[in-house]
Amino acid sequence: MAQLGNKITKDEFRKREPELRVRLLQAQQAVREAGIPVLILVSGVDGAGKGDTVNMLNEWMDPRVLRTFAFGAKSDEERERPDYWRFWRAIPRKGGIGLYVGSWYSDPIARRIGNDITRAALDARLTRIRTFEKTLVDDGALIIKFWLHLSKKDQKKRLKALESNPDTAWRVTRQDKEHLKLYDRFRSIAEHVLHETGTDEVPWTPVEGVDERYRHLQVGEHILERIEKHLARDRHWRLAPVDKPHHQPMASRTHDLLGQLDLAKSLSKKSYKAELQKYQSRLGRLARAAREKKISSILVFEGWDAGGKGGVIRRIVPALDARNYRAISVGPPTDEERAHHYLWRFWRHIPRAGAITIYDRSWYGRVLVERIEGFARRDEWLRAYAEINDFEEQLAEFGTVITKYWLHISKEEQWRRFQKRERVPWKRYKITEEDYRNREKWEAYEHAVADMVERTSTEYAPWILVEGNDKRYARIKALKVYCERLERALG
Amino acid sequence: MAQLGNKITKDEFRKREPELRVRLLQAQQAVREAGIPVLILVSGVDGAGKGDTVNMLNEWMDPRVLRTFAFGAKSDEERERPDYWRFWRAIPRKGGIGLYVGSWYSDPIARRIGNDITRAALDARLTRIRTFEKTLVDDGALIIKFWLHLSKKDQKKRLKALESNPDTAWRVTRQDKEHLKLYDRFRSIAEHVLHETGTDEVPWTPVEGVDERYRHLQVGEHILERIEKHLARDRHWRLAPVDKPHHQPMASRTHDLLGQLDLAKSLSKKSYKAELQKYQSRLGRLARAAREKKISSILVFEGWDAGGKGGVIRRIVPALDARNYRAISVGPPTDEERAHHYLWRFWRHIPRAGAITIYDRSWYGRVLVERIEGFARRDEWLRAYAEINDFEEQLAEFGTVITKYWLHISKEEQWRRFQKRERVPWKRYKITEEDYRNREKWEAYEHAVADMVERTSTEYAPWILVEGNDKRYARIKALKVYCERLERALG
Repeated sequence: MAQLGNKITKDEFRKREPELRVRLLQAQQAVREAGIPVLILVSGVDGAGKGDTVNMLNEWMDPRVLRTFAFGAKSDEERERPDYWRFWRAIPRKGGIGLYVGSWYSDPIARRIGNDITRAALDARLTRIRTFEKTLVDDGALIIKFWLHLSKKDQKKRLKALESNPDTAWRVTRQDKEHLKLYDRFRSIAEHVLHETGTDEVPWTPVEGVDERYRHLQVGEHILERIEKHLARDRHWRLAPVDKPHHQPMASRTHDLLGQLDLAKSLSKKSYKAELQKYQSRLGRLARAAREKKISSILVFEGWDAGGKGGVIRRIVPALDARNYRAISVGPPTDEERAHHYLWRFWRHIPRAGAITIYDRSWYGRVLVERIEGFARRDEWLRAYAEINDFEEQLAEFGTVITKYWLHISKEEQWRRFQKRERVPWKRYKITEEDYRNREKWEAYEHAVADMVERTSTEYAPWILVEGNDKRYARIKALKVYCERLERALG
Repeated sequence: MAQLGNKITKDEFRKREPELRVRLLQAQQAVREAGIPVLILVSGVDGAGKGDTVNMLNEWMDPRVLRTFAFGAKSDEERERPDYWRFWRAIPRKGGIGLYVGSWYSDPIARRIGNDITRAALDARLTRIRTFEKTLVDDGALIIKFWLHLSKKDQKKRLKALESNPDTAWRVTRQDKEHLKLYDRFRSIAEHVLHETGTDEVPWTPVEGVDERYRHLQVGEHILERIEKHLARDRHWRLAPVDKPHHQPMASRTHDLLGQLDLAKSLSKKSYKAELQKYQSRLGRLARAAREKKISSILVFEGWDAGGKGGVIRRIVPALDARNYRAISVGPPTDEERAHHYLWRFWRHIPRAGAITIYDRSWYGRVLVERIEGFARRDEWLRAYAEINDFEEQLAEFGTVITKYWLHISKEEQWRRFQKRERVPWKRYKITEEDYRNREKWEAYEHAVADMVERTSTEYAPWILVEGNDKRYARIKALKVYCERLERALG
């Protein structure tokens, strides 16, 4: 971050500005048409012109696609969710541009300067940042990160100038002055952060902050260059051959995982009644204790069609307070959801601390139906395992109890249930021709389930395989496991 | 609310349940296809089975269209917005069903019981409730309100029974017991509330809460009946002739409102520079003071194409802190937005207390472009004046400073600006053929603007007509007015 003292004269600026603006508008149009989400971060030294730069970009760019985000102190809704909830809420849609004054970098840097976190803790946060940015970039996003810098001398001068003018004195906060005192520390931490988070795909672009005109041109021209490069790559990528739906399993130790389940397990009607009462009552107590301790729960139900997901959910719900749980049946995404990363719709609806959310189907659709039907490309669903693990890890770190059920039945049992549903008038609507067609893909799903369980069963979010041929057995097992997980979390 | 002691035997329930469930599912399917938003409120006496009823409906109805909402203590994000923000966020989309445990009725009733508000204050809240429900119903929603009741004796019995069972004792809160002591007061307040808010279109349906089976059948059958009636009305309404786009003005005193503006008003370059500096600096100070006092601002910019909205906005923004304002350019709605009341998208993005939001076009599109182009029916845009006034009133009551600008230029000036834009490379994208076509509707817009200003200029949210032929004059006037409004709000 050498200071070269670059300056641009007014005349030169006037000469270069028109063409730059036109090309920037064209680039935005192209971004919009290509459906690329663009994130522009304006970070750096206080007094280096971050605010001016944001105002300038608001002036130069087409306001219909631009949204500016600032992240101040957390609201309690934000505090009651994992850290990154606020950032996921603020990612632009495909074709949109998000402009960030302050970002996921602000808090880690400020805390490290204030010595609130250790160097190791900072590094853990930088790892999370890399993962977050990679997740977006893998999905086609373009992330442009500016670091505006100033020498210590220039920063001092700049803050003095701002302070001496009554109209701008307010811009100089106490924090700014403290940072000035800590300039060397700030600089060394910033250099570490930039080094650790500047990757080939998401590099940092340092910009000298002293001369406003120079800064504006630098920023504008760099945005242009990055967009043009990204579009070229994007076109290339679009022309690449699309993968066929992928039914073959990966090399998997658990290949015959489902085949090993003992579907003969069952429970007599009498034991069922007693156990049901016992576990519902236990669950009721545990759920209330969890609520008081603000421990959230997420229950994920996946399984074969007619596997009995609804029946299990209906046995869990009566033990809960209707005001404290939400059952979400995951259907096709809305167009707003489709215009974002596939995890966005799930981040969006993360419940507040203490609540219970029951998902009837979930984000695992990515590695099940989307994989089998070819709605997701091979690289997309392959990537999803790690993305999902990261998502669930963030929830678990926040203290959420995550329990994931796969309700397993045999193919024959499914047939019997389909037939039975046809005879029950209020269940008939659940059966469509597609359900019958899906039976042909039984084996492909078996592979996908085995891969899923192997790759996303973690200590903090295990898969519970439920032997489901006997409904009574399945319901009690599901209830019991959830009780045990709550008990462990409550200590 | 007489107690008739209705009961249903187990056998009879078993006989009636299947048909009811099938018909309910069919009704939901029909609601979905017709795109009707349905709101079901489950209110009433504590211990009368509200929670059970909600669980039952969750079981009976298709979970893919049903969402349950409970409203607990307000989060700070909710506290930093008008009261109804949380309710607007929770209205179902067209074709969806929202189930409400607790609702906009809970807080007014609880506060009146606790004597925190006077009878008159309660009545004011009931008026707001009526307006809210009418707004939704006018837009095609079906609102079903259940009031579950119990006699004093039965309530006592029921709370005792719940308390004596360790699994259900938790359901009895201290508030329940207090309410029991206040049964007579609660009952008389509830009767008043039901009387005041039970309208022909949105009636209350009392349901005896003692017998669970009776309650379930009553609730289920009533939902069915209301949906069927609504669908019949809806079909009728759909067959009604659609209005032609309406260009004619209503009887308006301000018919020649725009014609009376003195477009010759102007400012020399020199005065402009001095005034600009003066008002930007004043605005900077005022905006910071407002932020500290958590006073929000909303600036609405409407005006002719090329009227200079963008230019004014760019003169306001440099005085503001980039972290504290957001400029929103209102384009076509997304499909999620289209699937809700037209005001939903604006409620959704109401800024938190202390923030400044600048709208480049706004909710006034309803009575301008949507009226002129026939995108809204006559009854819809006619209704919009009152709806918008109510919306802005709620913002103003919350302390938000609302300033609305109409940037006026002559038809000749617009032509000159179009021509000029064609010559400025980075402005050319702003000019489309549609802009030229819109000139043919100049008179229709003049009428619509006159109606809009007459009907929505209120003390708390006045329209500022800006003589815009001279850009310098327009910019200073807009800045000056905003400064004055902030000064008044700051006292």
